[in-house]
Amino acid sequence: MIETIKTYLNEQRDQHIEELMQFLRIPSISAVAEHQPDMIRCAEWTAQSLQKAGLENIEIMPTGGHPVVYADWLHAPGKPTVLVYGHYDVQPAEPLELWNTPPFEPVIQDGKLFGRGSTDDKGQLLLYAKVIEAFLRTHGSLPVNVKFCIEGEEEIASKHLPAFVEKYKDKLQADTIVLSDTQMQGPGKPALMYGLRGLAGFEITVDGANSDLHSGLFGGAVQNPIHALSKLLNSFHDEDGRVAVKGFYDRVIELSDKEREAFKQVEPDSNKVRSDLHVDTLYGEKGFSFYEQTTSRPTLEITSVSGGFQGEGIKPIIPNRASAKIACRLVAAQVPEEIMDAVEHHIRALSMPGVKVTLDRQLRGNPFITPIDEPVMVAAAEAYEDTYGAWPVYTRSGGSIPIVEVLGRVLDAPVVLLGFGLPGENLHAPNEHFHLVNWDKGTETISRFWLKLAAMRE
Amino acid sequence: MIETIKTYLNEQRDQHIEELMQFLRIPSISAVAEHQPDMIRCAEWTAQSLQKAGLENIEIMPTGGHPVVYADWLHAPGKPTVLVYGHYDVQPAEPLELWNTPPFEPVIQDGKLFGRGSTDDKGQLLLYAKVIEAFLRTHGSLPVNVKFCIEGEEEIASKHLPAFVEKYKDKLQADTIVLSDTQMQGPGKPALMYGLRGLAGFEITVDGANSDLHSGLFGGAVQNPIHALSKLLNSFHDEDGRVAVKGFYDRVIELSDKEREAFKQVEPDSNKVRSDLHVDTLYGEKGFSFYEQTTSRPTLEITSVSGGFQGEGIKPIIPNRASAKIACRLVAAQVPEEIMDAVEHHIRALSMPGVKVTLDRQLRGNPFITPIDEPVMVAAAEAYEDTYGAWPVYTRSGGSIPIVEVLGRVLDAPVVLLGFGLPGENLHAPNEHFHLVNWDKGTETISRFWLKLAAMRE
Repeated sequence: MIETIKTYLNEQRDQHIEELMQFLRIPSISAVAEHQPDMIRCAEWTAQSLQKAGLENIEIMPTGGHPVVYADWLHAPGKPTVLVYGHYDVQPAEPLELWNTPPFEPVIQDGKLFGRGSTDDKGQLLLYAKVIEAFLRTHGSLPVNVKFCIEGEEEIASKHLPAFVEKYKDKLQADTIVLSDTQMQGPGKPALMYGLRGLAGFEITVDGANSDLHSGLFGGAVQNPIHALSKLLNSFHDEDGRVAVKGFYDRVIELSDKEREAFKQVEPDSNKVRSDLHVDTLYGEKGFSFYEQTTSRPTLEITSVSGGFQGEGIKPIIPNRASAKIACRLVAAQVPEEIMDAVEHHIRALSMPGVKVTLDRQLRGNPFITPIDEPVMVAAAEAYEDTYGAWPVYTRSGGSIPIVEVLGRVLDAPVVLLGFGLPGENLHAPNEHFHLVNWDKGTETISRFWLKLAAMRE
Repeated sequence: MIETIKTYLNEQRDQHIEELMQFLRIPSISAVAEHQPDMIRCAEWTAQSLQKAGLENIEIMPTGGHPVVYADWLHAPGKPTVLVYGHYDVQPAEPLELWNTPPFEPVIQDGKLFGRGSTDDKGQLLLYAKVIEAFLRTHGSLPVNVKFCIEGEEEIASKHLPAFVEKYKDKLQADTIVLSDTQMQGPGKPALMYGLRGLAGFEITVDGANSDLHSGLFGGAVQNPIHALSKLLNSFHDEDGRVAVKGFYDRVIELSDKEREAFKQVEPDSNKVRSDLHVDTLYGEKGFSFYEQTTSRPTLEITSVSGGFQGEGIKPIIPNRASAKIACRLVAAQVPEEIMDAVEHHIRALSMPGVKVTLDRQLRGNPFITPIDEPVMVAAAEAYEDTYGAWPVYTRSGGSIPIVEVLGRVLDAPVVLLGFGLPGENLHAPNEHFHLVNWDKGTETISRFWLKLAAMRE
């Protein structure tokens, strides 16, 4: 069956790429208000494209912000249902002068399609419409049931999508969620990103006297909020770079031997990292590699600190306040609220005479993980291997894409991040492009993936 | 002899106060460029006033800034020479709307003379001219040799005076330096301020990677400059509030039993201090009272700290730099440069992998002390007692008046701070005033002081 699909896609390739170029010509920049008409136009284009592919029940659904495009095809009884997530919005193109060709006038050079959105995410998203078109035109049906949830606010932090997913969780219900908005390890080297870190962000404020004090008249007899804050901030880590907050690591799922082994394939050269950053040594929790530290271990980073006179020169005061902002990156199965509870307990347990400490909880994002031995992950890996001739590497990101976790949690389904981008494709930067070899291999991988998902229920 | 002097001063009192009011009418605000003509006018007024008193060799001497007024009377061979220091410049009067009477239209109400400069320092300075006038009119000579060095930049940190004193140190040479620019303990309670703290001010910068880093992608594997800075700042004090920098206390002259005893008379009610500041407890070096901590003990205060994104919200980065500014208040016989050496050694001895720490030395001011059993101090105390009927209390200030130390050190003579101001006279604030009872007692004290100095060489 896969050969018929490949033949069809090959015959239609020029037409399909031309359609992608149409998609890229719409400057659907979600962050900029004047592009509001383009956002509507792009949502409509997406809807029409899905309809043309053969999907049904097309809807452009309001969210309070840019709309979501919904579509489905549900005629494979007994087969799994796959929810495809993607986004039709793009990053702003500035600085324009650094583009070699205009960002919204796509061109192909050396097998690469240049244009804003080519890899993030229009190019990767359209793969799914074309796979559906191929199945329906050649076989009249899809091997699985499919739903689409395509948002227009991914580049502005998916502002309205969590509430949307909650509201329509029955409509969006699926057995697996799949999205292609990430990168491969390198040319010909597929990657399955199976973990993202969560976030707990809060601000600590230390208040001392009721006003700034003259450091000559009060220095040495009144607690200085900066001293107290330094003590507090220094207490968050031990000498081995480990977070010293009681209970911080309680829920951390340790890496399996299999994962540790898999990480060896993606571990960057730490000497190169060190020299790229111009530091004399890397520094982190002992007993873990750079890649492990930045993806599979939780961290507590002080992102800013402030206190006293911020102008030029030394104003010799004891400030009445000092504060710091902290971002904890969390890994499964840590819970942001529990982590902030633990920090609050840690603070209360410290002796801080003469000052008052308050904690203001500001950001919460759950960590995300899909276990690599989950059957859908195995199916995805096999699809990659059949297509690229290489088993994918397993990667995690130290960053956070909260919507991935929301989809998985609210819909209670494993999420597969099936990336076809390549490192260096300049997403969010000038001269964004997409290697078209991964257009072809992308459609093939997705087709094989769906066939394998269908086979799981035979 | 003192009775003749008192009688003369009493007879001339109205005329003398009228002269002081003329002095106060000149808005000699050194900080404001548009008052430059007033500064010149005020220097000339001061010079004429000293000449009228009977002083000789009057000079208005350039300094690079506002001029110094010099004068002398050196016809007491074999007797000590006293250098009188004072300043003819005043603080700006703003906020004007808070003055009950215009700042440069002096008026007398309830025995208090209101006007900018009335206590700081024109009122206290003019005492000396009137004492000289009294001696010369009634006895034709002074009991001691006298020199005047009256600057116009005290309110702008005596910018040019240190170089001036160095340059003219032969001309200014004296056995004792006296100035009246400080306060008594309270009505009828004279005070001899015999110590001021010095200052060592520096900035510490901690540099990490060559740019800010994404806290998701690098968090946990790269040293965060704020973490390193917090460790450093926290290392400066031990749990007992003592500075933990090796050698910091090496040169500190411990208080004598006599001084500790004397301090009990001036020690503020620490409960009141605590409640005025709205803190749950005071906090400082163990084993010392509030007054001892703030005047006789050196301190290391972090006056400001900064690092990371300073705007609203949490920007989850590892900043590439964090910095802190520190002001050490020093006591005799600490040396600012040695203290900064000690801090630098302390920093170098700490293990700080992954970051680079630099120290930028910015401020230096020596501590000042005149031992309370110095003969001139005893003479001053006796003069106070004879006048007020009370032995003075001995005070120290935790602040710094660097010029006092410069005068004493460069001219190698003890400095006596013979204050006649009272707490609450609003120096540097609206409605500055001077209690005229201390005009009368001030001239008497100074007269008695000079007679005693003369008697020391009989």
